Amino acid sequence: MPRNQQILLDNRPQGEATVDNFRLVATDTPALQDGQVLVRHHYLSLDPYMRGRMNDSKSYAASQALGEVMIGGTVGEVAESRNPKYAVGDKVVGMGGWQEYSVVDGNAPGLLRKVDTTHVPLSHYLGAVGMPGVTAWYGLVKIIAPKAGDTVVVSAATGAVGSAFAALAKARGCRAVGIAGGPDKCRYAVEELGFDACIDYKEHSDVKALAGALKIACPDGIDGYFENVGGWIMDAVMLRMNAFSRIAVCGMIAGYDGKPLPMANPALLLINRMKVEGFIVGEHMEVWPEALKELGTLVGTGKLRPRETIAQGIAAAPEAFLGLLKGKNFGKQLVKLI
Amino acid sequence: MPRNQQILLDNRPQGEATVDNFRLVATDTPALQDGQVLVRHHYLSLDPYMRGRMNDSKSYAASQALGEVMIGGTVGEVAESRNPKYAVGDKVVGMGGWQEYSVVDGNAPGLLRKVDTTHVPLSHYLGAVGMPGVTAWYGLVKIIAPKAGDTVVVSAATGAVGSAFAALAKARGCRAVGIAGGPDKCRYAVEELGFDACIDYKEHSDVKALAGALKIACPDGIDGYFENVGGWIMDAVMLRMNAFSRIAVCGMIAGYDGKPLPMANPALLLINRMKVEGFIVGEHMEVWPEALKELGTLVGTGKLRPRETIAQGIAAAPEAFLGLLKGKNFGKQLVKLI
Repeated sequence: MPRNQQILLDNRPQGEATVDNFRLVATDTPALQDGQVLVRHHYLSLDPYMRGRMNDSKSYAASQALGEVMIGGTVGEVAESRNPKYAVGDKVVGMGGWQEYSVVDGNAPGLLRKVDTTHVPLSHYLGAVGMPGVTAWYGLVKIIAPKAGDTVVVSAATGAVGSAFAALAKARGCRAVGIAGGPDKCRYAVEELGFDACIDYKEHSDVKALAGALKIACPDGIDGYFENVGGWIMDAVMLRMNAFSRIAVCGMIAGYDGKPLPMANPALLLINRMKVEGFIVGEHMEVWPEALKELGTLVGTGKLRPRETIAQGIAAAPEAFLGLLKGKNFGKQLVKLI
Repeated sequence: MPRNQQILLDNRPQGEATVDNFRLVATDTPALQDGQVLVRHHYLSLDPYMRGRMNDSKSYAASQALGEVMIGGTVGEVAESRNPKYAVGDKVVGMGGWQEYSVVDGNAPGLLRKVDTTHVPLSHYLGAVGMPGVTAWYGLVKIIAPKAGDTVVVSAATGAVGSAFAALAKARGCRAVGIAGGPDKCRYAVEELGFDACIDYKEHSDVKALAGALKIACPDGIDGYFENVGGWIMDAVMLRMNAFSRIAVCGMIAGYDGKPLPMANPALLLINRMKVEGFIVGEHMEVWPEALKELGTLVGTGKLRPRETIAQGIAAAPEAFLGLLKGKNFGKQLVKLI
């Protein structure tokens, strides 16, 4: 019965989240019952949606209960099994949460999935070949639904979702333009992720300036926008969107600390006959197999080379998570647990 | 060659539109050329979209040129014909503009359409069985796409679009709730148009109050919203919308005078995984035959009994139009020209 360090949600943020909202505890892992497996987590995924769960208010998912282990995606290996479907050493992806071990009912559908690490490194199943990758796929393929030659834009362009978005858009013959914070991220977006252009929103730091930079980067206007941040960046993008353009709303990280962020000019939705759709990828499990197949091939063939920012040890998770919310990470933010 | 009184756009509004933006002139109708018909207008349609045309700024349609006849839908009869497809006395609907007569190329597709007034009064081809009716049909059927039992809401509920929306929604087994200004309109909405409930926004005159009234009128939340006005009314409706709900954006009359009206909380699009779509019915001509057939049947069978507000004479058009923008009309606003 190995010792299991866990991070609990101790109290809810008042405005901005802080490390004091979390608490580190240690317990013994319980003895397994029939059908259960013990998973030792190698990596914990940190994702912006977790910030929404920390609030008590109505959101798209149940709010995280106080005193419980923070929710989160994990990859790891089976350390012990009382389920014939899983052998010790199997590599698995699941929602183990912010802890070193989890006990999972191996018979419950969807809780645990075995993965093949021959061509895809284990950690990528939390990023490009996991939830963030499928998120990019769904927004691009099912909502933006671009044709070759369309111009598509994504905010938080060098994050896990944005990275996959670029590769998926280029595979469809689109012009892909990113928005990211800082020259290093923008250079990486163009040189390594395959974006045709990337705009530094810190250099163009108001609606008018960003809209101007978008005009240059998107000479034919914008046909599709994948929204990760909301707020003034969305307002600027909307000014450059074409008739019949589409916005996939995946995140509004700018508003997660509680102050509602208005949309400056919703009349543009009518003027340009736009379509805007919010989505949560976990509600579209039917697309995961097709999406994961394409994403796995893109990674396996080197067309998608996602970068990772890796914090070491479960105790580092809160600070790494707060950094993610401020855009301090570079690519997928992970916590390495072994 | 009868004398033709016309109303021109003389100058553009600075903020609110006024009667001084228009100018009344009179000319002789020109002699017909081969293929042309002279139409004597019986009714001119006044519609909110015309306000957008008066501005110089980018909108979904070309801005109305200064010194030209105001654009507008008309019904009338053929007064003279040099086209074998049209006989004197034929009843026709077209886009004749704010004038008493128009000369039309009878061979150009879509400019003129003969209509049957056996079961449907001529004027209704500008309302319930015309562009406003098809507008309601498209937004309800193609964007909101409700199933029986859904709750759908429309603003400007007693206008030409809202009236048709109620009948179409009830025919689909929906709970139909209107928003209108004043107790008379609300009573009419429920007693004559078939709305299950109608909320007076003048009685509930802020976001919180209106959201509270909507909560009572829509105990199961709102599945679809047909937007005619924008601004704070939209903000209130959004607070009561269900997961996976849809908004058809047809008009944002509240913003037509120039000041952009923000959407207070676009994060709700994500939280509730909503779909929002702007549309212009003239871009979806493929649905008109099906929509007009249903609308004609609803009117012919008395299930849709649209009310009309009728101004007399072309000179009365500007004032009637400004009244429409302020919600002074009751049902479809027309100008009777003969």
